[in-house]
Amino acid sequence: MSKHSTLIAATALAITAMTGVAFGDGHTDKALAAAVKARQAQMQLIGYNTGLLGEMAKGATPYDAALATSAAKNLSAAASLDRQTIWLEGSVQGTVDGTRAKADIWTNAAGFTEKATALETAADAMVTAAGTDLAALQAAMGGVGGTCKACHETYRGPKN
Amino acid sequence: MSKHSTLIAATALAITAMTGVAFGDGHTDKALAAAVKARQAQMQLIGYNTGLLGEMAKGATPYDAALATSAAKNLSAAASLDRQTIWLEGSVQGTVDGTRAKADIWTNAAGFTEKATALETAADAMVTAAGTDLAALQAAMGGVGGTCKACHETYRGPKN
Repeated sequence: MSKHSTLIAATALAITAMTGVAFGDGHTDKALAAAVKARQAQMQLIGYNTGLLGEMAKGATPYDAALATSAAKNLSAAASLDRQTIWLEGSVQGTVDGTRAKADIWTNAAGFTEKATALETAADAMVTAAGTDLAALQAAMGGVGGTCKACHETYRGPKN
Repeated sequence: MSKHSTLIAATALAITAMTGVAFGDGHTDKALAAAVKARQAQMQLIGYNTGLLGEMAKGATPYDAALATSAAKNLSAAASLDRQTIWLEGSVQGTVDGTRAKADIWTNAAGFTEKATALETAADAMVTAAGTDLAALQAAMGGVGGTCKACHETYRGPKN
């Protein structure tokens, strides 16, 4: 390493330590780990609310329009979270503990956005359906379940 | 117990087993535990996004209008989740592992709603402020931090 590049590296390290942000597209390990936890919280909320709707759809719990609407609104809100701050480039399986996010999420960003938007659309449809009646809720479940599955099949890696 | 009340109790148990939902205001242990996890996911998202904004406010990370807006929108979405399905009556500290929710949340529901609504309002103000400039973001932080603190002081129990 030349004197010049050593100086640049040392300066970069100092600025990283000061700002907590790495150069270029990079992010600190701490930022990547925090983003993964935020994403897992997002998935937890999506799963919880889909579960409540699914239980009503299959008759495991009684249909209740108010509760179904509450769950559908929360599903929609969780699905529609802005991805910029929680899907940080580099927060990928193998780099950050616990995540199963494949690198394709960033190398094929348009494809990932398409899958994520499909869930947002299905969740919005569920908000209307959930407050209508049980048959409408049941009909809307396929859209929610299908868009979850489609994204996981393409962009989620194997179990850690 | 009379024959009649025994029959009612037995029927209630059978229906509970079938539907997974207890009678009256009660919920199954499984439902209460799931609601607590959903709430903790909500708090995780609130904390993550408040943290990102707080780091910019104090200059630990550079001010970035797009990232700040993303964080503020996600903070607002998380703060505004419908409480009906995630703040289930009975999911209280001492009953469900891991939660610090005080019983006052349900015995003083109007008071709790007031504190929760104050955060929603502060988060909405942050959405506008975050995209304006660093000074606006810094000015809006007090509202977010203050409403978090006010609710925790009243409705959060001691560490488990």
